[in-house]
Amino acid sequence: MAKAVKPGKVYRCDEEKELLLTRMRRIEGQARGIARMIEEGRYCVDVVQQLTALSSAADEVALRMLQDHIKGCVTDAIREERGEEAIEELMGVIRKAIHR
Amino acid sequence: MAKAVKPGKVYRCDEEKELLLTRMRRIEGQARGIARMIEEGRYCVDVVQQLTALSSAADEVALRMLQDHIKGCVTDAIREERGEEAIEELMGVIRKAIHR
Amino acid sequence: MAKAVKPGKVYRCDEEKELLLTRMRRIEGQARGIARMIEEGRYCVDVVQQLTALSSAADEVALRMLQDHIKGCVTDAIREERGEEAIEELMGVIRKAIHR
Amino acid sequence: MAKAVKPGKVYRCDEEKELLLTRMRRIEGQARGIARMIEEGRYCVDVVQQLTALSSAADEVALRMLQDHIKGCVTDAIREERGEEAIEELMGVIRKAIHR
Repeated sequence: MAKAVKPGKVYRCDEEKELLLTRMRRIEGQARGIARMIEEGRYCVDVVQQLTALSSAADEVALRMLQDHIKGCVTDAIREERGEEAIEELMGVIRKAIHR
Repeated sequence: MAKAVKPGKVYRCDEEKELLLTRMRRIEGQARGIARMIEEGRYCVDVVQQLTALSSAADEVALRMLQDHIKGCVTDAIREERGEEAIEELMGVIRKAIHR
Repeated sequence: MAKAVKPGKVYRCDEEKELLLTRMRRIEGQARGIARMIEEGRYCVDVVQQLTALSSAADEVALRMLQDHIKGCVTDAIREERGEEAIEELMGVIRKAIHR
Repeated sequence: MAKAVKPGKVYRCDEEKELLLTRMRRIEGQARGIARMIEEGRYCVDVVQQLTALSSAADEVALRMLQDHIKGCVTDAIREERGEEAIEELMGVIRKAIHR
């Protein structure tokens, strides 16, 4: 679906890439921390709160990437009269993110 | 908040603990995989979809722990006439999970 | 599903009932207001914001009813050793509310 | 915020307008139906399920309007080199819809 929109590679600027990678490493650390809490038999409510925090952190990265995507790929597509398809695809991910 | 409800340790059966740990290791792997996708300049929409999947996986673990919590701690609290407090606390986490 | 848990009627105190009904009338009013905005050709972003507010208001009522449900029906079920079933059912609605 | 993007009126085609209005009338009906359920003392879980359905219906209308907005206002803004602002504003509503 929406093949024509999909480039081989997306060139993100180094700064943005670094920021996204830092966030992903933090999420990885959160996952490890939660595993440790479960291992240690920590209180369920505290673990659930950490899981909610992890989910929110992942949503934040997704929102950031969506913004980059709209400013980059979707904007280009609209300028090159391939907007329809790019917007269809975009709505698909927004829908999934909202109904997740 | 809700100190009286909070036990020092929660004793989960080994089987449940193993299942939860397996899921957390998988989420950790997903986080690492997404970092790799960003590193390789993979298409934003594909990365966002993986982030949504990671969020959903974390929500699933949270739901499972909530269920254990209600069947364990909350049920005990209700039987021992400490239900009010335990339910207040439970609603707090459900609210956060819904509004996350 | 969970038939045994389901009573013919739930007796809510008048005060709680009034509060819930007031909220539902407000949501009905929000829906009418949004229809009017659409009719008048109001700016999409403003309409979407009102729709999000309406969704949140409905979530709030749902959370409130969930709390009443846990304090009432689920607590009774646990005391009468019918907790398992009531918790299964409860998790079903929480799951749907989270994944909505 | 984003004043320059905001038109006095948005001209939706009659067909789209009718569809949106039909959906809003249905949501208004759902709200009334839920009030009746509360009035009649219907089972909490059933009421909560109807509230979740109402929320989802409102989300669907919001997604549809977001799509119209991106295809209309945002696309125009990008073509007229006012994309930055329109995308900022768009991300604001998406963020709120996801975190609602």
